[in-house]
Amino acid sequence: MSKRSIRVFSPATVANVVCGFDILGFAVNEPGDELYMELCDEPGVVIASIEGDEGKLPLDPDKNTVSACVKSILRHLGKEDLGVKLKLTKKMPLGSGLGSSSASAVAGIFAINELLGRPLTKHELLPFAMEGEALACGHGHADNVAPALFGGFTLIKSYEPLEVIQLPVPDLYCALLYPHVDVPTRDARQIIRSKVALKDAVVQWGNIAGLVSALYQHDYDLLGRSMKDVIVEPVRSILIPEFDSMKQQALANGALGFGISGSGPTVFSLYRNKEDAEKVLNQLKAFLKEKGIESNIYLSKVNSEGPVVLE
Amino acid sequence: MSKRSIRVFSPATVANVVCGFDILGFAVNEPGDELYMELCDEPGVVIASIEGDEGKLPLDPDKNTVSACVKSILRHLGKEDLGVKLKLTKKMPLGSGLGSSSASAVAGIFAINELLGRPLTKHELLPFAMEGEALACGHGHADNVAPALFGGFTLIKSYEPLEVIQLPVPDLYCALLYPHVDVPTRDARQIIRSKVALKDAVVQWGNIAGLVSALYQHDYDLLGRSMKDVIVEPVRSILIPEFDSMKQQALANGALGFGISGSGPTVFSLYRNKEDAEKVLNQLKAFLKEKGIESNIYLSKVNSEGPVVLE
Repeated sequence: MSKRSIRVFSPATVANVVCGFDILGFAVNEPGDELYMELCDEPGVVIASIEGDEGKLPLDPDKNTVSACVKSILRHLGKEDLGVKLKLTKKMPLGSGLGSSSASAVAGIFAINELLGRPLTKHELLPFAMEGEALACGHGHADNVAPALFGGFTLIKSYEPLEVIQLPVPDLYCALLYPHVDVPTRDARQIIRSKVALKDAVVQWGNIAGLVSALYQHDYDLLGRSMKDVIVEPVRSILIPEFDSMKQQALANGALGFGISGSGPTVFSLYRNKEDAEKVLNQLKAFLKEKGIESNIYLSKVNSEGPVVLE
Repeated sequence: MSKRSIRVFSPATVANVVCGFDILGFAVNEPGDELYMELCDEPGVVIASIEGDEGKLPLDPDKNTVSACVKSILRHLGKEDLGVKLKLTKKMPLGSGLGSSSASAVAGIFAINELLGRPLTKHELLPFAMEGEALACGHGHADNVAPALFGGFTLIKSYEPLEVIQLPVPDLYCALLYPHVDVPTRDARQIIRSKVALKDAVVQWGNIAGLVSALYQHDYDLLGRSMKDVIVEPVRSILIPEFDSMKQQALANGALGFGISGSGPTVFSLYRNKEDAEKVLNQLKAFLKEKGIESNIYLSKVNSEGPVVLE
């Protein structure tokens, strides 16, 4: 072990990417979490501080996602006697559909693995991050955790057994807009019908197949034509004010595609160039403000490497 | 126009490739149709002979798929006064799930386009072949026509508008077995439920995304793991005697995947090497014979170029 302390960045993620409900996600360079981790002499995992969460996250190491992830890795490696001190800086809103708990989980497992000299590969780390996510959300879904850990676009080919495929990373900008409205994940889940028309499912799998093909071919026009969701978006978008209007404005101004991030209320759109993305983001923010809705906006490249060590 | 006559081969196709119901098909090198076409002085399209169809196909040029396709292309090109004589040799069973009418339609449009010095691209030819297919089946589905015309694996990303994507061609052998039982396309369609569970649809689009990814990565293990159909096969396979047992035997002896070709009753399986494919085909044929069911078997590489000019 060369280092005794480390500071890492872990990215926010867009899950349920349009036609890829439950199977497709990608990471962005902004926003994200920062985690400082320090090995110390006193055994046990301790959370020294959490900033940027408005006091919402638990400091109890067994209940907090980051520390729970770290503890389960230490247990796995037979190093439960190690002392670890954590300082988490949330640089993204919680419960916004940006994979906040996944970013924290990934920050924790990535940092401890780095400090211990990388005993585990990213594929081996994945289940520990899912465990942490389960603690926060009640179910260990991989569709935020996997892109946060691997970066780029990730496909969850199957859950049983868990199989994650890293897809080629498009050279695109992602615009995120988080409107300050409440859409609890539970409501967003419950609104979805448990049965779908076969003909809609056929349209959907034609689009997901087209989208995967577009990523391999770096064909961004095809990517745009494939970013259509006939099953989940039509019902979930009802929970997001001005969704249709925002989508129309974005697509008319250079967006390749527009959709709900995770279970919302954040919406995302993809662009070939930064100027278009910036223009649309500012326009949508002003548009919502006129309707009396505040929002946060973020603009960055699609992330290509997952978490990184900071300086 | 340099040539006055031509002989072409047009491939049989496997549509509804497992998780790719209605959107994914591929062509094989065997079986297929052979078509002889000759330009002559007397105006009009005439079918001189059809062999191998047991007298089932119409000789009336307006009702036959091949001639109807040729006529509609001539109409499109303003060359209705041209004289064309056709001799079709069916080298595959009709109504077997191998895209027999698509092979004939593609043979016709390909041959006339070659004789006229290729005025149209393959993408431009596609709608004419679909028209011919509509004449034979009552609906113009592209999932047999597209792979027959382009070769390899083709994805029908969408029907409205029609968009076909040529996927990378895997270097694999395809084993086909046509059991002599009757499964009318109409019955095979009607047995499918019009509603599906969302959770099954999610599994299905994870698999189709995995399959497309596998083709781009030339990862045949992943291809095998993705060749799963939780929606259509469970109901349609009921119409094919000994389906589950055949599938088990194939997968236990080197098949990467096994499924229904089109709407059946032909079944197909894919292999890395010819010996495994041959062994399984012979074993399955003998197995069905014991049960009192005769069958035709075909073994060839996945086709990579679609129709070709012979000698």
